[in-house]
Amino acid sequence: MEIVERLLKGDAGAAARLISMAEDEDPRAVKALSALHAHTGKAQIIGVTGPPGAGKSTVIDQAVKVYRKKGCKVGILAIDPTSPFTGGAILGDRIRMQQHSTDPGVFIRSMGTRGWTGGLSKGTASAIKILDALGMDPIIVETVGAGQSEVEIVRSAHSVLIVEVPGLGDDIQAFKAGILEIGDVFVVNKADREGADKAVAELRAMLETCQEPRAWAPPVLKASARDGAGIGEVVDALDSHFAFIKQSGAKDLKDRASAEREFMEVLRDRLAKYITEKVVRKGEFDALVERILRRQLDPYSAAEKLLEPIEKGK
Amino acid sequence: MEIVERLLKGDAGAAARLISMAEDEDPRAVKALSALHAHTGKAQIIGVTGPPGAGKSTVIDQAVKVYRKKGCKVGILAIDPTSPFTGGAILGDRIRMQQHSTDPGVFIRSMGTRGWTGGLSKGTASAIKILDALGMDPIIVETVGAGQSEVEIVRSAHSVLIVEVPGLGDDIQAFKAGILEIGDVFVVNKADREGADKAVAELRAMLETCQEPRAWAPPVLKASARDGAGIGEVVDALDSHFAFIKQSGAKDLKDRASAEREFMEVLRDRLAKYITEKVVRKGEFDALVERILRRQLDPYSAAEKLLEPIEKGK
Repeated sequence: MEIVERLLKGDAGAAARLISMAEDEDPRAVKALSALHAHTGKAQIIGVTGPPGAGKSTVIDQAVKVYRKKGCKVGILAIDPTSPFTGGAILGDRIRMQQHSTDPGVFIRSMGTRGWTGGLSKGTASAIKILDALGMDPIIVETVGAGQSEVEIVRSAHSVLIVEVPGLGDDIQAFKAGILEIGDVFVVNKADREGADKAVAELRAMLETCQEPRAWAPPVLKASARDGAGIGEVVDALDSHFAFIKQSGAKDLKDRASAEREFMEVLRDRLAKYITEKVVRKGEFDALVERILRRQLDPYSAAEKLLEPIEKGK
Repeated sequence: MEIVERLLKGDAGAAARLISMAEDEDPRAVKALSALHAHTGKAQIIGVTGPPGAGKSTVIDQAVKVYRKKGCKVGILAIDPTSPFTGGAILGDRIRMQQHSTDPGVFIRSMGTRGWTGGLSKGTASAIKILDALGMDPIIVETVGAGQSEVEIVRSAHSVLIVEVPGLGDDIQAFKAGILEIGDVFVVNKADREGADKAVAELRAMLETCQEPRAWAPPVLKASARDGAGIGEVVDALDSHFAFIKQSGAKDLKDRASAEREFMEVLRDRLAKYITEKVVRKGEFDALVERILRRQLDPYSAAEKLLEPIEKGK
């Protein structure tokens, strides 16, 4: 396929188009992803999360500068929860990091969260794969710190960077409790603000008291991303973490889990498609829904009826 | 089944236990839900959403009083995004509405969002079904206003109540854009605050300009839930909306869509279980994952290999 060849030669336009195709569930995307698979598995995948307003994008922006100076090509996926009803972004425009937009060594993409079941997951996983094949390393996945998208990020990332800020009140304290276990590197941004040292001390204390001892002790750093102060240390810590998980075998475990999940998802997708094609189109589905609505049949018994031949078949 | 009989006699303890079983994906829950199906489809399901801090719980609390005076039994499901890592609630405790906790005509349940793909969806759908069979009507589903859980609420609710407050700044403005289309009734809470009339006027203007004309024009009301002012009108508007969708046929369409979605989900679940039992346990899955990891095989081709016999079988 032409798009695959172009992408493997480093054509960012081809990558962008393929990500869109994957998001739209274009059947050609599956073929391309299938062909790209052999060229993946090289990049460090870094998840970045934290409360809204912590300055995640600014931290990433400055980290990109550091990575570029080291000669790395950087991929950035900003997971953007869009309204499924309007298609518009809830969190406002992401027209930041424009300074990198003309740099061919930086690939920035905002990922919508269209699609319901597993939509977020599939699109992001495909985009990571595409950027990996394109030669981007690291690949930074930014998400707003909330529920599902956090699960996503932890599952797909090798290293998770948590961006905090001083003094965001009680909600954030509660938020922290859920985030302690997922962070590999913590940074308190806007460190010139009052309470920065207190925030660092609190985070360290929480990490020590609330967590099982881990082989990797997550560092808590301070930064002022606006002027780039402290970001070099953040990148160093992310490098150290990647070296650590490679050496400890944790990276292999993570990669295996990711492969299993991806495979399982592909299997589920294909089966869902199979149901749609063989069952839904034949009208059998509608007839069963009608009986479910009339309370003549419940959905569990209906499923049993429908799947019996398949389940007995093998 | 004993639990089904007890529940149909109005035993709230049985309902609570069955919701837990459904959340834990206890196989006995499927049997019970299957038996309960014939006894469902009666309640008005009301979704309540809005930005954090708008006072959703207080509004619901007061609405429950109004419903109780009218002789209705009320079910409340508070969807609570918990950290999938700690199991703890991010949004803090929900020990509100305690005044209703001894009233047998009120059933309150906090639903975690455990489980990844479709977990939120399944648990909530089951809980709604259980409360419906228990005889609760209306069933109020409260969610924090963000992404996925909104989709959930719109999909499962007959009527959606949006709770807003005066002056929450730009983020909320952006948030509103996504919420206009899903609201059937709007209420500006904390109406004694400055800017309440402006917020009402703005919402009305946005509804008029940003929306396609709808047969149902969503009312924008004012309330001060702390002292109950305006809540009677909110309940009246929700009643009117339910009457409207019953009369217009929109309720039938919603119910049909819900039934289809539920059935599809049950089908997917069963197929996933089938894969696990027939494929994963046989070790074939692990062998394929190993080849995927070594980049000898891509997940799409592996899925094709695995599912060929099933797909050809029928």
